[in-house]
Amino acid sequence: MRRAVVLLGAALSLGPVRATAQSGPEVARAYREANEASLVRDFAEMLSYPNRAHTPEIRRAALYIRDQMRGVGVRTELLEIDGVSPLILGELRVPGATRTLGIYVHYDGQAVDPTNWTHDPFHPTLYSAAMEAGGEPIPLPEDGQAVDPEWRLYARSAGDDKAPIAAILPVLRSFRESGVVPTSNLVFMFDGEEEAGSRNLRTYMEMASETLDDIDIWLFFDGPAHPSGRPQITFGVRGSVGMEVTVYGATRNLHSGHYGNWAPDTGNILAHLLASMKDLDGNVLVEGWYDTVEPIGEEERAALRAMPDWDAELRRELGIVKTEGEPQSLPERLLVPALNVRGITSGNTGSLARNVIPNTAVAALGIRMVKGNTSEYLRQRIIDHIVRQGFHVVEEDPDMETRLRYPRIAKVTGGHGGSIAARTSMSDPFAQSVMEAASAAADRAFGEGALVLAPGMGGTLPLYLFTEVAGKPAIVVPVANHDNNQHAPDENLRIANLWYAIDLYAALMTMPKTVF
Amino acid sequence: MRRAVVLLGAALSLGPVRATAQSGPEVARAYREANEASLVRDFAEMLSYPNRAHTPEIRRAALYIRDQMRGVGVRTELLEIDGVSPLILGELRVPGATRTLGIYVHYDGQAVDPTNWTHDPFHPTLYSAAMEAGGEPIPLPEDGQAVDPEWRLYARSAGDDKAPIAAILPVLRSFRESGVVPTSNLVFMFDGEEEAGSRNLRTYMEMASETLDDIDIWLFFDGPAHPSGRPQITFGVRGSVGMEVTVYGATRNLHSGHYGNWAPDTGNILAHLLASMKDLDGNVLVEGWYDTVEPIGEEERAALRAMPDWDAELRRELGIVKTEGEPQSLPERLLVPALNVRGITSGNTGSLARNVIPNTAVAALGIRMVKGNTSEYLRQRIIDHIVRQGFHVVEEDPDMETRLRYPRIAKVTGGHGGSIAARTSMSDPFAQSVMEAASAAADRAFGEGALVLAPGMGGTLPLYLFTEVAGKPAIVVPVANHDNNQHAPDENLRIANLWYAIDLYAALMTMPKTVF
Repeated sequence: MRRAVVLLGAALSLGPVRATAQSGPEVARAYREANEASLVRDFAEMLSYPNRAHTPEIRRAALYIRDQMRGVGVRTELLEIDGVSPLILGELRVPGATRTLGIYVHYDGQAVDPTNWTHDPFHPTLYSAAMEAGGEPIPLPEDGQAVDPEWRLYARSAGDDKAPIAAILPVLRSFRESGVVPTSNLVFMFDGEEEAGSRNLRTYMEMASETLDDIDIWLFFDGPAHPSGRPQITFGVRGSVGMEVTVYGATRNLHSGHYGNWAPDTGNILAHLLASMKDLDGNVLVEGWYDTVEPIGEEERAALRAMPDWDAELRRELGIVKTEGEPQSLPERLLVPALNVRGITSGNTGSLARNVIPNTAVAALGIRMVKGNTSEYLRQRIIDHIVRQGFHVVEEDPDMETRLRYPRIAKVTGGHGGSIAARTSMSDPFAQSVMEAASAAADRAFGEGALVLAPGMGGTLPLYLFTEVAGKPAIVVPVANHDNNQHAPDENLRIANLWYAIDLYAALMTMPKTVF
Repeated sequence: MRRAVVLLGAALSLGPVRATAQSGPEVARAYREANEASLVRDFAEMLSYPNRAHTPEIRRAALYIRDQMRGVGVRTELLEIDGVSPLILGELRVPGATRTLGIYVHYDGQAVDPTNWTHDPFHPTLYSAAMEAGGEPIPLPEDGQAVDPEWRLYARSAGDDKAPIAAILPVLRSFRESGVVPTSNLVFMFDGEEEAGSRNLRTYMEMASETLDDIDIWLFFDGPAHPSGRPQITFGVRGSVGMEVTVYGATRNLHSGHYGNWAPDTGNILAHLLASMKDLDGNVLVEGWYDTVEPIGEEERAALRAMPDWDAELRRELGIVKTEGEPQSLPERLLVPALNVRGITSGNTGSLARNVIPNTAVAALGIRMVKGNTSEYLRQRIIDHIVRQGFHVVEEDPDMETRLRYPRIAKVTGGHGGSIAARTSMSDPFAQSVMEAASAAADRAFGEGALVLAPGMGGTLPLYLFTEVAGKPAIVVPVANHDNNQHAPDENLRIANLWYAIDLYAALMTMPKTVF
């Protein structure tokens, strides 16, 4: 049962317009500086609404946000599908604008187990600094009280991903009060089920197609800063798909005494197969694996060279000496498709190990795709590779006739569909413009040259719905501190990062019209 | 708490001795032919005693068997350790005998789940033929009623391993009644915990050392016929030991998107290691693996050549085309040490698979040793091999300092002790004598040339306690039908195999004194 809310696509009038000589970022910054205490309190109020996807109470969070957005002049409605978190859709049409910016945020949060939290995750608690740095709980500030940017606000979704909404609202309010007009139409899409996989997002986007169709470019306001603590923007995500390979021995587990040295040793057979797929330096040996990777350009290569050298720190943190693809760095390695063993199951180990030769050995493979890859293409390369290793490939467990015909049999399942990789070229004029706006904001908030430009991140976002399905460029613009404990207990936002978000969004919403 | 029962090692007198011109086998056969119905009933009675190791009720089974043995003139006592099944120890000393035969049987049985049985496993049920061959339940025979040798008696331990006791008793009774004198002293050791691993057997043997010390040779009355249905005797068993190898990646599972292509892929690393240990033809590549194997002699080679070619049948049954070590046959492959993967654990597969790079991958290895091997030697060869593959080998999970020092780390645990392989040379005079006696019995029961001589079996028995620890030759002499469903529901014995056991044991107990 779907109930589409028809959006009247008419342009919204902005509030009373007053001429101003100040730029958007200047206006937003002045507004923030004059209202820091109330901005922190407003953020805390928003964070008090429980927001686990698809729960009855998330609708209250959605209604609250809808009303806040309406309060700053954005025509905002909820789209709803029964049993699914509402999608919050807002529009701010600007007379004369020739471009439309799509802004994606998600207002749902990860599940919480309150017993693991220092405070109730929906009773936002302000700290004088990060807990790990010796911060202590302090009361929310009163009007006029100075706000220390090193304060942290602890609550579920403080970092992931309500902070962008808490920054969008004051930017728009400041613009409204000062008569600043955004240089683009703005369409806000606040997803209520990102942490649950955004399974209904495509449907919602179809329901909202009239509003979304003229979006030129998407900005993803999600994710944390670079682990170095520096702000970053990212131009792509990897796609992801899983598949599974099962190799077969006898029809049943065999006694390792009675048959060992004679019966097929499934663990060893699978080991040879997996070893043939990737060498110990991390190079995938599957023929054609790297053939369809869309090459990166000079801008991306320059960005990679300029990124903080964080590998040594990561190795220290994770206790590893040798990484795949050395001496390439992690950011470089995220731009080629990955083939990993997510799991292996065969017989048992530890106290459950028995004297058997297991009749099957199963490997779950995790594939991370980059722009240019499709799951169908890579899946077929893997199947071809398995065939070249001497296997007869099947899709179901083999029957006796099949078993007695082929010396080696492998079942391959999965590997279809998955999420699609996306990457926006850094030479795209829009990308250039976003980089300029973000650089300026980052310079102000974190110091000259702070912004990290990452050609691609390793994980997956529903970015492909925008870039591949809708054919629009998209860029990920995170604002949360890198140590925000996203997906974990004691999630928090550093207040300085909220101020950065306000600077950044104000700049993005008033980018010169000429650049895209 | 141990309570040793002191056995008076004095020679037992045989019952009233009457001169007879008949040989032992002739006497036993005549006795059997005259008492077939009561022998079947007696066997059924013995099978009605529940006999799971270390249960309170197994003592009743032990007392019953002790009394039966005493009834045929064997001085029999129970040795007991608190909480452990009793060991039944019997002695029949023969005036003038210069040799002592040790006879091992186990009277305990595998656990039963009665819901999987057609009949109560301790309510022995006679069938007109095997269930699979259309047999129907029939009443136990009355005296004088003809007994069809194709009948089957269904009960736990019918085949494994009470049948030998059911055959020993009438042989000794017939000897006693007809004045046949065994040619050797006989010592009977009936183990009450074989299916539970015979963990107390060494202690029991030390407790009984006065009785056991002069045993020259051991016969193991256990196991089934060759799968071809032909009777067999076996001159050795393999030893067994397990060990475990764990390889390490990062200190925690890593997100396969954020780190895939850079973080160590533990499944792949383990795959390379396991693949390096054995090639796809089944040859172990661990240096020195085969170096300490005691070579077989001409008799063993001839026996191997004469064994039924059963590989093709086994492959059909088990649904496999390619076996390790082709074109060598299974019996040949049982004479070299095996290295198998008993299990692999890393992350998860199937619906539990997650987008992680598991931080460890674990392989449980199963090693089957042959005569000449020790677990310590083979364990060290494996460790040396792992080191040659570039790993730093540890015995505990590595700490951070260790992790940051070595590019590859493997933890190796287990591999110590285990059970020891044993093999009696087929050129041993005792072995020759047993072969002659068994051949004659098998010719009579199954037809000319029926006996299969197997230089070694694949599994493990506590044979090494006798051969290696006590330094005595030992031979495995099975009597049960190959399809006796041992360790499974509906275990049974074919009556013809009980008759064969009587012929065989009578021959073994009256082997010419000159052969050993």
